[in-house]
Amino acid sequence: MWNKTRLSTLFGVEYPIIQAPMAGGPTTPELVSEVSNEGGLGIIGAGYFTAEKLTSSIQEVKKRTNKPFGVNLFVVKEQFVSETDLRKSFESLGPFREKLKLPDELPEIKTSLGITELIDIVIHEEVPICSFTFGIPDKEIITRLKKHNIIVVGTATTVEEAKAVEEAGMDAVVAQGSEAGGHRATFIGHSNNGLIGTMALVPQVKDYVHIPVIASGGIMDGRGFAAASMLGAEGVQMGTAFLTTKESGANEFHKRAVLTSTEEQTVITTAFSGKAARGINNYFIHQLTGEGVLIAPYPIQNSLTKPIRSEAMKQGDTRFMSLWSGQGSRMSENTTVKELFGKLVSDINGLLN
Amino acid sequence: MWNKTRLSTLFGVEYPIIQAPMAGGPTTPELVSEVSNEGGLGIIGAGYFTAEKLTSSIQEVKKRTNKPFGVNLFVVKEQFVSETDLRKSFESLGPFREKLKLPDELPEIKTSLGITELIDIVIHEEVPICSFTFGIPDKEIITRLKKHNIIVVGTATTVEEAKAVEEAGMDAVVAQGSEAGGHRATFIGHSNNGLIGTMALVPQVKDYVHIPVIASGGIMDGRGFAAASMLGAEGVQMGTAFLTTKESGANEFHKRAVLTSTEEQTVITTAFSGKAARGINNYFIHQLTGEGVLIAPYPIQNSLTKPIRSEAMKQGDTRFMSLWSGQGSRMSENTTVKELFGKLVSDINGLLN
Repeated sequence: MWNKTRLSTLFGVEYPIIQAPMAGGPTTPELVSEVSNEGGLGIIGAGYFTAEKLTSSIQEVKKRTNKPFGVNLFVVKEQFVSETDLRKSFESLGPFREKLKLPDELPEIKTSLGITELIDIVIHEEVPICSFTFGIPDKEIITRLKKHNIIVVGTATTVEEAKAVEEAGMDAVVAQGSEAGGHRATFIGHSNNGLIGTMALVPQVKDYVHIPVIASGGIMDGRGFAAASMLGAEGVQMGTAFLTTKESGANEFHKRAVLTSTEEQTVITTAFSGKAARGINNYFIHQLTGEGVLIAPYPIQNSLTKPIRSEAMKQGDTRFMSLWSGQGSRMSENTTVKELFGKLVSDINGLLN
Repeated sequence: MWNKTRLSTLFGVEYPIIQAPMAGGPTTPELVSEVSNEGGLGIIGAGYFTAEKLTSSIQEVKKRTNKPFGVNLFVVKEQFVSETDLRKSFESLGPFREKLKLPDELPEIKTSLGITELIDIVIHEEVPICSFTFGIPDKEIITRLKKHNIIVVGTATTVEEAKAVEEAGMDAVVAQGSEAGGHRATFIGHSNNGLIGTMALVPQVKDYVHIPVIASGGIMDGRGFAAASMLGAEGVQMGTAFLTTKESGANEFHKRAVLTSTEEQTVITTAFSGKAARGINNYFIHQLTGEGVLIAPYPIQNSLTKPIRSEAMKQGDTRFMSLWSGQGSRMSENTTVKELFGKLVSDINGLLN
């Protein structure tokens, strides 16, 4: 049976199909719980959450499902920039504030993303699975989570990163191929080193680690699941496929942009957050790619662009929005999670039985 | 049976496994004939060949096999550069000539790669299959080849390119994912638009064309074949996997570099030829990536760097060689083609039967 992998046993799910933790809106309690109710694993993308927001989200999910689900957190070290550099990055964004009629004032700047308090909530709320992006949390955090029987999952974009995830004692590793939408999870070396396509990444990771490998990047349907399974993955993580579902909290203009885009339209950019991420190319990215623009490190740039992104969403102006998308966007559909799972399971059965 | 696809029937081969047309050395008559003898399709990478070289290569292959094989040609429009720009590109290479103790003189410059004469030879020698890279040949060429019952294959890096290949009347299309080593086949728009990972590219191409799709990029073993097959491909094209075989004519230092490299070490560069290609990062690429360097268009840059690449190969100095490699290099092995096929077929049987 294709769905009985070490990973589905570990997670306690019917299908080893994971909904990617798309931070910043898409992973509503409706989306997360519905994925879990359909037999997959829903994950709350809590990277930017406050403690209150995380608690309420978990409780909302629990109201809607009694199946396993997960929380994803970001591992981000504190960043420093000089006042001059911060000002320069802020000034680069002036024309966008002007176009959106936003006040020309410095927003609240986050130089790091706290994780300790969020971990406490994950433990207190007995969330079954906790995954991490952008790095490996301190040993002490992993030990605490495991002591509370919480499954710990890391994310890797290279073989070296996957080995580091395993060595840290995590239970499974997501191998994120270059096709994936949203942020690159790269944490060792330069992010461009991590642009390995899923077809090449998954079998090489599989050859070097013993923990279950979860394939991600470009997987949109039953064909992608079956292919990942042939490469040695014991599960898949899908983002873009869930982003356009009816339950997803992604902005409607974002959904429409993905649904109508082609595979050629995405680029890797640091313009929105300071970290490399894949999204549909637009005016904002184009303007910030030129010479003389200073992009602040993550998460400072993310704070700087936040008012612009929020206002652009309100106005439905996709020129200034972060339109995260993977390279499989021609295969995206605006269905319900139930319909998506129905098709997935039936297609995989057709291919793998 | 996994090996009975429309493609294997079309090509008349036992296994729909194609050896990629690695121009510039690797595709010796020994390699090509051995791949065909083992039941796959060997292809002579004739993009840079003279008429004489092509004739003798075809005849050498025919002496070694009575199985189908192919010839690959480049579709390249004539390029023009000003004397000043040519001089500037030439000067950028001065330090390399100096290090290799080469005379500081302008080599013979090819501004285009003739195709008509080579097509005549393909027809005269009754080569069963002719594939093309970098574009679509004139309608008249396709018509002539098909009139002589020669199967015509195109190469695409995007859905639009695949549609163009089908519309031109070609019989099959290679979908080249971003993992692939060597030159990007992109011919519509900018080559960076064509950096779609195999996992995302193959199913999307499949959804838009009716002719058989051949997956390439990151496919190194039975797992890759099986995955490609799940994505809807009717065959695979493998380059890096054949480059390191004993029969391959690749320089021994090039082979060793691939065999000992990791998936993170390749980059896309135009430094060697003027066209984007994936190879192991080295001193030459690094030096030509800086500011103020003028890289001539393909194939002019290729002519300019030729003496440097040739001398570097003689001296075994990998700092100045074009070390083409895909992203699956950790899976490369220095076996015979026979051993490679034995393992491939047995692994695919294990996965797909």
